[in-house]
Amino acid sequence: MSYISKPYILFGGDFNPEQWDRQTLEKDLLLLKNAGVNTLTLPVFAWAKMEPEEGRYEFDWLDEILDRIEAYEMKYFLATPTCAQPAWMSKKYPEVLPVDIAGRKRTHGMRVFFCYNSPKYRERAAAIATVMAERYKFRKGLSGWHVANEYGTYCYCENCQKRFRQWLVERYGTINSLNEHWHTTFWGRQVYSFDEVMLPTELNDDYRFNPTVQLDYMRFVTDSTIECYENEARILKKARPDLPVFTNISGYIKKLNQFKMVPHMDVAGWDNYPWPTDDPGFPAMKHDIMRAANGGKSYYVMEQSPNQQNWQPYNKIKRPGEVRRIAYQGLAHGSDSSMFFQMHQSIAGQEKFHGAIIGRNGDGNTRIYREISELGEELARLEDRFVGGRTQAEVGILFDWENWWALELTSGPTKDMDYLQEVFRYYKPLYDMNVPVDMVHYQDDLSKYKVLIAPMLYMMKDHIGEKLDQFVKDGGVLLATYMTGYADENDRCVFGAYPGPLRKALGLWVEETDALRPEEENTVCIGDRTLGICGFLCDLVQLETAKAEAVYGQDFYADRPVITSNKYGRGRAWYIASRLEYKVLKQLIKGLLKSRRVEPLFESEGQVEIAVRENKKGKTYFLINHGNETASVDLGAGYYGNLLNHHTMQGEIFIAAGDVLVLMPVHN
Amino acid sequence: MSYISKPYILFGGDFNPEQWDRQTLEKDLLLLKNAGVNTLTLPVFAWAKMEPEEGRYEFDWLDEILDRIEAYEMKYFLATPTCAQPAWMSKKYPEVLPVDIAGRKRTHGMRVFFCYNSPKYRERAAAIATVMAERYKFRKGLSGWHVANEYGTYCYCENCQKRFRQWLVERYGTINSLNEHWHTTFWGRQVYSFDEVMLPTELNDDYRFNPTVQLDYMRFVTDSTIECYENEARILKKARPDLPVFTNISGYIKKLNQFKMVPHMDVAGWDNYPWPTDDPGFPAMKHDIMRAANGGKSYYVMEQSPNQQNWQPYNKIKRPGEVRRIAYQGLAHGSDSSMFFQMHQSIAGQEKFHGAIIGRNGDGNTRIYREISELGEELARLEDRFVGGRTQAEVGILFDWENWWALELTSGPTKDMDYLQEVFRYYKPLYDMNVPVDMVHYQDDLSKYKVLIAPMLYMMKDHIGEKLDQFVKDGGVLLATYMTGYADENDRCVFGAYPGPLRKALGLWVEETDALRPEEENTVCIGDRTLGICGFLCDLVQLETAKAEAVYGQDFYADRPVITSNKYGRGRAWYIASRLEYKVLKQLIKGLLKSRRVEPLFESEGQVEIAVRENKKGKTYFLINHGNETASVDLGAGYYGNLLNHHTMQGEIFIAAGDVLVLMPVHN
Amino acid sequence: MSYISKPYILFGGDFNPEQWDRQTLEKDLLLLKNAGVNTLTLPVFAWAKMEPEEGRYEFDWLDEILDRIEAYEMKYFLATPTCAQPAWMSKKYPEVLPVDIAGRKRTHGMRVFFCYNSPKYRERAAAIATVMAERYKFRKGLSGWHVANEYGTYCYCENCQKRFRQWLVERYGTINSLNEHWHTTFWGRQVYSFDEVMLPTELNDDYRFNPTVQLDYMRFVTDSTIECYENEARILKKARPDLPVFTNISGYIKKLNQFKMVPHMDVAGWDNYPWPTDDPGFPAMKHDIMRAANGGKSYYVMEQSPNQQNWQPYNKIKRPGEVRRIAYQGLAHGSDSSMFFQMHQSIAGQEKFHGAIIGRNGDGNTRIYREISELGEELARLEDRFVGGRTQAEVGILFDWENWWALELTSGPTKDMDYLQEVFRYYKPLYDMNVPVDMVHYQDDLSKYKVLIAPMLYMMKDHIGEKLDQFVKDGGVLLATYMTGYADENDRCVFGAYPGPLRKALGLWVEETDALRPEEENTVCIGDRTLGICGFLCDLVQLETAKAEAVYGQDFYADRPVITSNKYGRGRAWYIASRLEYKVLKQLIKGLLKSRRVEPLFESEGQVEIAVRENKKGKTYFLINHGNETASVDLGAGYYGNLLNHHTMQGEIFIAAGDVLVLMPVHN
Repeated sequence: MSYISKPYILFGGDFNPEQWDRQTLEKDLLLLKNAGVNTLTLPVFAWAKMEPEEGRYEFDWLDEILDRIEAYEMKYFLATPTCAQPAWMSKKYPEVLPVDIAGRKRTHGMRVFFCYNSPKYRERAAAIATVMAERYKFRKGLSGWHVANEYGTYCYCENCQKRFRQWLVERYGTINSLNEHWHTTFWGRQVYSFDEVMLPTELNDDYRFNPTVQLDYMRFVTDSTIECYENEARILKKARPDLPVFTNISGYIKKLNQFKMVPHMDVAGWDNYPWPTDDPGFPAMKHDIMRAANGGKSYYVMEQSPNQQNWQPYNKIKRPGEVRRIAYQGLAHGSDSSMFFQMHQSIAGQEKFHGAIIGRNGDGNTRIYREISELGEELARLEDRFVGGRTQAEVGILFDWENWWALELTSGPTKDMDYLQEVFRYYKPLYDMNVPVDMVHYQDDLSKYKVLIAPMLYMMKDHIGEKLDQFVKDGGVLLATYMTGYADENDRCVFGAYPGPLRKALGLWVEETDALRPEEENTVCIGDRTLGICGFLCDLVQLETAKAEAVYGQDFYADRPVITSNKYGRGRAWYIASRLEYKVLKQLIKGLLKSRRVEPLFESEGQVEIAVRENKKGKTYFLINHGNETASVDLGAGYYGNLLNHHTMQGEIFIAAGDVLVLMPVHN
Repeated sequence: MSYISKPYILFGGDFNPEQWDRQTLEKDLLLLKNAGVNTLTLPVFAWAKMEPEEGRYEFDWLDEILDRIEAYEMKYFLATPTCAQPAWMSKKYPEVLPVDIAGRKRTHGMRVFFCYNSPKYRERAAAIATVMAERYKFRKGLSGWHVANEYGTYCYCENCQKRFRQWLVERYGTINSLNEHWHTTFWGRQVYSFDEVMLPTELNDDYRFNPTVQLDYMRFVTDSTIECYENEARILKKARPDLPVFTNISGYIKKLNQFKMVPHMDVAGWDNYPWPTDDPGFPAMKHDIMRAANGGKSYYVMEQSPNQQNWQPYNKIKRPGEVRRIAYQGLAHGSDSSMFFQMHQSIAGQEKFHGAIIGRNGDGNTRIYREISELGEELARLEDRFVGGRTQAEVGILFDWENWWALELTSGPTKDMDYLQEVFRYYKPLYDMNVPVDMVHYQDDLSKYKVLIAPMLYMMKDHIGEKLDQFVKDGGVLLATYMTGYADENDRCVFGAYPGPLRKALGLWVEETDALRPEEENTVCIGDRTLGICGFLCDLVQLETAKAEAVYGQDFYADRPVITSNKYGRGRAWYIASRLEYKVLKQLIKGLLKSRRVEPLFESEGQVEIAVRENKKGKTYFLINHGNETASVDLGAGYYGNLLNHHTMQGEIFIAAGDVLVLMPVHN
Repeated sequence: MSYISKPYILFGGDFNPEQWDRQTLEKDLLLLKNAGVNTLTLPVFAWAKMEPEEGRYEFDWLDEILDRIEAYEMKYFLATPTCAQPAWMSKKYPEVLPVDIAGRKRTHGMRVFFCYNSPKYRERAAAIATVMAERYKFRKGLSGWHVANEYGTYCYCENCQKRFRQWLVERYGTINSLNEHWHTTFWGRQVYSFDEVMLPTELNDDYRFNPTVQLDYMRFVTDSTIECYENEARILKKARPDLPVFTNISGYIKKLNQFKMVPHMDVAGWDNYPWPTDDPGFPAMKHDIMRAANGGKSYYVMEQSPNQQNWQPYNKIKRPGEVRRIAYQGLAHGSDSSMFFQMHQSIAGQEKFHGAIIGRNGDGNTRIYREISELGEELARLEDRFVGGRTQAEVGILFDWENWWALELTSGPTKDMDYLQEVFRYYKPLYDMNVPVDMVHYQDDLSKYKVLIAPMLYMMKDHIGEKLDQFVKDGGVLLATYMTGYADENDRCVFGAYPGPLRKALGLWVEETDALRPEEENTVCIGDRTLGICGFLCDLVQLETAKAEAVYGQDFYADRPVITSNKYGRGRAWYIASRLEYKVLKQLIKGLLKSRRVEPLFESEGQVEIAVRENKKGKTYFLINHGNETASVDLGAGYYGNLLNHHTMQGEIFIAAGDVLVLMPVHN
């Protein structure tokens, strides 16, 4: 599974030694070694230093640094520095600079600031990747190749315009087919040649008023970015087929379809920057999305902050133990690494207030250095206990990038459309109940799940409707919601009444959808009993074969169904017509789990997160108390050993506020 | 009055059959026919389909659709499709694309997205209008011509710059005259040639910091848009002089002076999209403004939504009966039509969540289809009872587009300047008292009114001051307010002290104006008695011949006048120096009405709107209960027949929550 | 000290007579004369009128106006009209128009709207300055020269790009030096030639994401603006070396470094526009900043509003007596003038709602004219009593423009960084205690102060750290705060641990900094006693030689120091690790003052401001009651004469709400 000969947990992160003198470098490496760091990523931003003029490379300084790293017996991912081209390149070849959505040619500056379709950019990127591959491929410290950094530019230059048209030719073949798929009869948008298609920008407002074009443009950018990644990756892979090649995915993951990108990488690397205001379950879900992007295999957390960020409105320092909990959360959900940005705090620029393992004082006399060192020591002790481990989930939540794009592009019924937050509403009860969840890609095999939740599955493409129909017929329990089954992959509403392809399985259709303002709400009732409140959107459904499980309590549609279920084949399909408040939704989901005998990992009290991974060494349980109170977990009859302190435990156990347990079953 | 041989209420709306296959088309037409639809508007967005390349027209598909419509004995307005030029045209002739206020050349996309001054655009628009006119002028289903759709672009291209300078030459003759009218000595803005005048854009900030230039630019855009409309209208009119030609005015009506545009049309058509949060009286006032724009004659409501919109933040579905009330409100205020956007919900694009008579399910099994059908049946029964009917009002409210522009462009005294909402404050008490109101254009004959209200008549031009002075002298009662009599039509304060030309009639002048923050207020007092609160602006006036009717109760200007009246000639002029709270203002207006014996149509309790129209068949009263409670109306001694159910009623009657009555006097 | 032969208080302001006819002009001059006006500024915006085409000047109209002013025995500052070039110049020489931060070439319009580096602009500005100097230099009314108006444009044109590179060559010499000072190894920003440096704009986002470049660009703009000012000033100075040359500084003073600009002027002139919502102490601090900019010498208030502004959201009229208090506040803090914008309200344009001495009614029958006249009469009576007077302060607050820039450019730790408001938090307790304060430039002699406060002295340059260290060693009391000692003048954190150069004097270092959201807070405790709250930022410090004077009461860092002091040499250095609430801070500062026996001018009760100036005629005390209640002041044993009414007073005296006393010590 892992490309690394002897598996262990990667611990370390971004190292930018080109900023430091030799003395600092040496001191840093000693401090990092002592902290348990085993893996570094470098030299991410050093293109200008490595190639001071076209085709002339200066690598001696890097050779020396790699020597020193290896002297400390640390490994490294070598990063191509192609996320920030040198200023001379922007000057010599303006084509490498992107044009923004307002039609403005950018000038040199910032980072991740190039046209991913520029032939010259790709030529120069391939050139330096080639030189690096040849020079370093057999170095003993080399663990793998890291391509560029956090792709994510959207470019609107003439060349991208041209390539977008070519991409459309490949996708649609004929202009008639494009017109049909784009339904250009609306607002008179027919085109008679591909050359008439314009990029969706602020100059025509199509980026927000023409969702169909915008969707294809976003697909095109994903495809172009993959090409741009492959442009380097194929060189690196060829040099050392046995080493992993990948890039790190920005924590803000909406604008590139990671489900499409990650399969081009050997492993998913992602940058995990939870917000102080996040529910602890929210980054857990993001981890599960990355695991899904990587096909269920373990992945790499490539960046986390060892302390505060600099780019949030209020950059809170991490509470004692918080870094440890964040690290174990990643490991619990499928990461084989706990990497940090950054090793030593920069002295200048945009990120000089960002946390680092080594702070401005330059020595180990800080709380953060001590916490990181303790974590390093723990991770070393865990060895390969769960490395490569996978998680078997009986419950899945359908998640799809293009659905995300389409939902939030749609004009109406409400401006408060936030797919990620909405999916999390359905993830949260499962998380709280300690039930492992797979985030499911629409092309995955659905048959392994007992219960599937499909929140706001607005876009139905590639027969996902039929697959879900079959899933229910075959005995599965499906929970679908408002905003389901509207559009095909071109955002056309071709299914007739909603929920489109799921109409039969759900046994109903949606006549109207009311949008509620944030301060408005309705109630969910069974007979005289009010279960709780609902809001956001309120579908008015017409039942066909489904039955009402609960009804609205207010407004002119009081007594119309708000929760329905439909026996269908050997399974049952549930529909919720409105956003239910947490307690009602949790009760509902609990019932669904019970109906298919899905059990939690353990029962618990308190704000404790429980997750499991399994590899050939067996199962490993992670128990993370995110709360400020002691939590309890009922381990039941089995015995478990805590890998962090070798205590054995059984039955009801208590976890101190903020503490983490890593348990293995003890077969006595 | 009406161009239609046998008058009836137009019922139907926008039909975009180019989106549908034949089977759907046929099904739609049957459903529409069954719903009582008698008039369709088409093909608004079909230019690209109708003219696939320059000068080659494809009209067969439209011929066939018109045949089918006629087969169902429905009528139609033929729309020139010129609001959305084909992509090939934008590509071939970039001049048709506008330049935006930021100086950016737009690219093809969206709709209403052309330069209204482009010679090429006008040439192609005239060409297709000519072809359509010749081809369709004698079709039996043709009810009239609908030009383009919701004009409203502001263009800043080189050609517009050139034409603006020509327009200025025509307006001012000499550069000296322009300098004088623009008072260019302020901030050293003298110009020595018309070529030095630049459009007011974001590139010089004149669009917000130079109100004088911006005002003329807005006039220029209105004039240019009229030319653009006339470019097609004259062709259509020539083809069938007996049929009405018009365009539909966007519901957001600020940026084009409709009082200037509508006289160029045979009838005012407008798109009525009330917000869920609107006071019911607010769209009533907008209807009255449109009636005024049309010179008091009946007009057409060309668009309404049969259900939710898609472009509001929270698109609420219409409550049961709400569409009916909206429809009758338009008819009550002077519309001879109740047209809807749209007949069948689009399957793609920006508006696919917008309500339609026929929803996504494609059949009549929806609440909305049923409500529309019931409305259609009612309107058919009403026949021509009030078609062409007019409303005689004894009370007028002065309303002026250029005053609107100037007030909101002005820097100071407050940022909260909202002319439309402010005028509505004065409209609302009259609306609540069931007193018909004319929105009055400054060039109208004022002598027919007993009471005139002139809210914030900041801009005084064309002797409106003298006219109002004469109105009072002749016995009229005038109510003027803060922000009155400041500027001439070039936004120059040339009148000396405010309220300028009304100083004599009002018998006072304004020494200072205090601006209050939203959370601040003052009080309105008579002796020891506090009538209520006031705020927004507080004028400090010096009385000349006027007397204080009420004074401020707070701040350093306590005891200075806040309401004054002045006997002048045979009339009386009132001034309010601050925005009065509703109850105080209503009491004041009630007194004014009483002083001239202006009577309400009827006395009522509850949230009922009452309006009247009169044609040669007599008077028709509309009673619309917008509230959630039963309302009562005292019909007095007369007998009235409800045209909707043929019941006869007299004295105090009750109207169910949400219900509508349409009454005719019964002469027994 | 003063350039004016017989010193007196300048009273008058901006006069724009080119807007008026002769009759109005004559009436205005009489009114102004009667109001006590002695000095006018003109013709600020008349370039287009004065130079109708290139090189042809029309000055007759101005000659005549100056004649009339002199006939009334008033003086004037002649203003070069170069803040608003004529339209013909923008048309003929587009280079005079600036390019904005979005890369857009501006079109003619507005004012202060030129490229300060344009050779053509400078040529034409020098030309008209030369002609004016020659024509008017010996006019008897001439009091001095006023250059342009409120400089403040930021230009991003090609020429500025070129000149910025030259400026960098001069500053850094070699590209290696630039790379080092800019620490370009961060994010791979190395450049190999100065031609690779791009201006920081919206096109590369460097204006906000690359503080180092932005800082140098802001320095460059200041330097360029000084050149632009000198371009005219040297001509005017040469013509009449005995007369002062200066410009007026915009009330919003952030974007040009006034500490660098003012030394190029003979006197600082600034425009004082307090907001209705300002604490009365806030404009007092701004006055003190201007006094500091002028090296402690008296300066000129060139603009104030005699009544409301037009550009605030809610333009409140000045309360009775408010203009007088504003005027005396300026005089109290070091101004020798009380000048107003404007003499007569404009009839058009952006500022037509701005207050003026003569309002729209055109005569003296207004409250404002009367208040101004009374003020004029008072000022005349005060003669030269305090003209040229200086203020001796024992307490200083360090203030620095570049620190301001750098702090607010920094990304992290909090978005709520507002240097001016934060400095005011430390000014306010001193203001409230009637303790005179100098705003101190980092290059000033520090030895004259007993107590120095250095709020958020983030940027430490030119050995200010060593100077402050020495200050404490020599017996001074220093108060430093969070965000101290981070960066050098290139925003590089080169000092190791914070507070960098002050680490030894303060006896501690800062390990971490927590950012609190506005709704969050911590507490300040001594033992069991809670002194009050703190927030904004919370440093976690490690003490070295300092001792904790108070500790945090909350969060995981409870019991860690929040206030510390360190005996160092003969002085003591205090550090506050978090923003303290007012009462705690005041108590702390009171203790510091006491420790060095700094006494208030007088003890007072109520919202009274007390300031003092001293010239060769002795001390003058200003007592201004900004409150709505009577205030009391204890004058102690000495006797004082009120220069405004010649009353003599002693001991506890009472000042009516809103009143002003101007006292001189009476030696009896």
